Amino acid sequence: MPELISSLRAIVGASHVLDPADPAVDLAPYTRDWRKRYQGRARAVVFPGTPIEVAEVVRLCHRLGVALVPQGGNTGLVGGGVPDESGQQVVIQVGRLNRVRRIDKANLTMEVEAGCVLAHAQQAATAAGLMLPLSLASEGSCTIGGNLASNAGGTQVLRYGNAREQCLGLEVVTPEGAIWNGLRGLRKDNTGYDLRDLYIGSEGTLGVITAAVMRLQPAPIGVVTALATCADLVDATDLLVQAQARCAMTLTGFEVMNRTSIDLVRRHFPQLAQGVPAANWTVLIELSGPTSEGMTRLQLEELMADCMDRGLIDDGLIAVSMQQSRTFWHLREAIALAQSQEGLNVKHDISLPVSAIGEFVAGADAAIARHVPGARMVCFGHLGDGNLHYNVQAPEGQDPAAFLKNHEAGLNALVYDAVVHRGGSISAEHGIGRLKRDELRLRHDPVALALMQRIKSALDPSNLMNPGKVL
Amino acid sequence: MPELISSLRAIVGASHVLDPADPAVDLAPYTRDWRKRYQGRARAVVFPGTPIEVAEVVRLCHRLGVALVPQGGNTGLVGGGVPDESGQQVVIQVGRLNRVRRIDKANLTMEVEAGCVLAHAQQAATAAGLMLPLSLASEGSCTIGGNLASNAGGTQVLRYGNAREQCLGLEVVTPEGAIWNGLRGLRKDNTGYDLRDLYIGSEGTLGVITAAVMRLQPAPIGVVTALATCADLVDATDLLVQAQARCAMTLTGFEVMNRTSIDLVRRHFPQLAQGVPAANWTVLIELSGPTSEGMTRLQLEELMADCMDRGLIDDGLIAVSMQQSRTFWHLREAIALAQSQEGLNVKHDISLPVSAIGEFVAGADAAIARHVPGARMVCFGHLGDGNLHYNVQAPEGQDPAAFLKNHEAGLNALVYDAVVHRGGSISAEHGIGRLKRDELRLRHDPVALALMQRIKSALDPSNLMNPGKVL
Repeated sequence: MPELISSLRAIVGASHVLDPADPAVDLAPYTRDWRKRYQGRARAVVFPGTPIEVAEVVRLCHRLGVALVPQGGNTGLVGGGVPDESGQQVVIQVGRLNRVRRIDKANLTMEVEAGCVLAHAQQAATAAGLMLPLSLASEGSCTIGGNLASNAGGTQVLRYGNAREQCLGLEVVTPEGAIWNGLRGLRKDNTGYDLRDLYIGSEGTLGVITAAVMRLQPAPIGVVTALATCADLVDATDLLVQAQARCAMTLTGFEVMNRTSIDLVRRHFPQLAQGVPAANWTVLIELSGPTSEGMTRLQLEELMADCMDRGLIDDGLIAVSMQQSRTFWHLREAIALAQSQEGLNVKHDISLPVSAIGEFVAGADAAIARHVPGARMVCFGHLGDGNLHYNVQAPEGQDPAAFLKNHEAGLNALVYDAVVHRGGSISAEHGIGRLKRDELRLRHDPVALALMQRIKSALDPSNLMNPGKVL
Repeated sequence: MPELISSLRAIVGASHVLDPADPAVDLAPYTRDWRKRYQGRARAVVFPGTPIEVAEVVRLCHRLGVALVPQGGNTGLVGGGVPDESGQQVVIQVGRLNRVRRIDKANLTMEVEAGCVLAHAQQAATAAGLMLPLSLASEGSCTIGGNLASNAGGTQVLRYGNAREQCLGLEVVTPEGAIWNGLRGLRKDNTGYDLRDLYIGSEGTLGVITAAVMRLQPAPIGVVTALATCADLVDATDLLVQAQARCAMTLTGFEVMNRTSIDLVRRHFPQLAQGVPAANWTVLIELSGPTSEGMTRLQLEELMADCMDRGLIDDGLIAVSMQQSRTFWHLREAIALAQSQEGLNVKHDISLPVSAIGEFVAGADAAIARHVPGARMVCFGHLGDGNLHYNVQAPEGQDPAAFLKNHEAGLNALVYDAVVHRGGSISAEHGIGRLKRDELRLRHDPVALALMQRIKSALDPSNLMNPGKVL
């Protein structure tokens, strides 16, 4: 083991390798996942400063038969970025690769290193008068490399797509330590197999992403936000259909929150829910118009009025200022935090065809109520993308930890069975990692799983790149 | 050989197998490519009627060690869909798999079989009040399966992306005859490696696409088109930047045509160029607004006026009717036909970062003028996507066939060297097929090529699926 550490230090410099044998060092930030479900052990944590150093580290580990775990901001929700309990895996931390290398304003692209924090990349785009419309709760600490490795989603997918759709090119170190330079800023490029999209979403199991070319967008001109309340989710879905038909590409946000979600925010962050009418379902609608804010507001008012006439909306509230608009988004974003305050819960990050969502939620709500009487369904998310966070909180007054322990497996089975039955996905935006690996094996198309396994074996025959994750 | 034919007939029915030994049968439509560069021979042409029959045909051929060439509308431009000259390959023609299986209006998706002609799929979407915004010159005969296998581009990429971005799910028969059912209509789905995008653009070398779920879009509301003339390509690029900044997602078309392109249309289809001012560069701009046609027209007028003030545009013409708008598009689409009328020429389907295009064209024009004095550069294409058709026509009065024979290799080397040097692609939307296989091998990143080869070997270890194409 000492030879490994000294060899790593020879590559990246002594101060850029953390050795667990050093009593002054706390490895927890690199060995424990964000949700604190997995506490692993590392043989070393190494911080390369250049892609060439990444390649040298990978070659060294490949030669020695040492497994590697690539890690960015360590904000993943499925345990994909932390080592296992063996103490044999090396964490390759890309946080020092944090430069925005170049912004090409005419081409609307940014070349950025994997360890750059998402918020910094967003700020660099904004400073250039443009926009990087990838936006997630963890944007202050997650990194571009991790966003791509996990194909992150977030709140702007409806209009701009997932991390996948926002990436044009990649630089990757392969499991054997070669550097693939695929840093192309092209919107059309049909030269062989699509390696870019294979690496995106592969969660570090096929190599280490070291840099990317991201698409930028012109800054939006008129952005207007509203809240609308609906009697049920079918009405909310119909409202979505109307909004898409009438506003087309102007519709940039369509988030739903059920009553329990907002009640939890009201309990834990009362100021954020002030003035929000109580309702079965609350929808956050955002339009980003091509001309003025005034024109966009007019369009939103017409949509809301028409949908009230149709009986889809009961009540509505159009933000009168940027400040109020931010409050609406804070309400939406506070749900996850309010859930944490309320205590441990069973989380599901699922997606379904939009047309199936109303029936799915009605069916799953009823089944869960039978399974655990009093369980509180906290359902919210990106209805415009068919993506719901369908979480289950313990009945009022019950111990959350005991609830999680006793019911997680049963609730997962119930929810995932219903999702798969309706053509949905058991992981819409969080990925598979370690948390859902067994679920994937159990529920995914066996032909697809066999193809994935062949690809993994072909590109990482020694199985040293983030082993035990995804497959 | 007779056993193969009779076994194929047992699977798909006697009338759905064409046997080259039958003197009454003309196999040319299936063995010769659209550009007539490749005239192959087939051991048989088989027309399965269901995905299960496709799988049975593939399993039979796999067992017998017979290579297969998947084929849709046979409109490809790189020889990817026709058999080689050996007479040993079976063409698997998917034209009978031509159903639109289902349109889900709330989910904005269409499930469609691989052999469905693109125009039929477009019509089905339109009939449902929606839009399938994949649009190419060959849409009357190309098929969805071929569009996906080659990741087709076309004129609506700027706003809606390539075929890749418009596809949510696939059904594929693997090289060993298993059926992967990946027909999901989900906008977010992070469950393992992205097999969908691996198959899209793999040109039939990894399996046979049998069906797909395509994204649909709300029908656009106000569509307005204009022509603008620019003194040079740098002005046209600046105009693009302005249009993107001012119109954002409203900009749905931005095509350029150089003087020679329009002169050729003027010569061969004079009625299409009537009233079009002569200029070094002509730009076709299309906006699709979210509200009314009147609002969109106002936005386009403001853009044009402002860009005239800035000196980017010399002259402009906003279409006053849908009829005139169609004429503008016909002008653009007629260039390829006018080139055919003018005679054989050297074609390049390239892409570059938008910021590099002005310098690229200036440099390549000058180099070609030195290489073949009098050669006529016919340069047109999708500037908004960085994709140019940079074609070279023989000098006036010279024999096109002799020009092609003498200069194709030299001009290709000159153009492709310059493209690669500037971070561009030697095949933006046409793919690799057989035509550009050697160029790919020569010019592509060697690490990427090695990864592609590993994937091919892993998924098609017997190399029976469209061998000799792409890699």
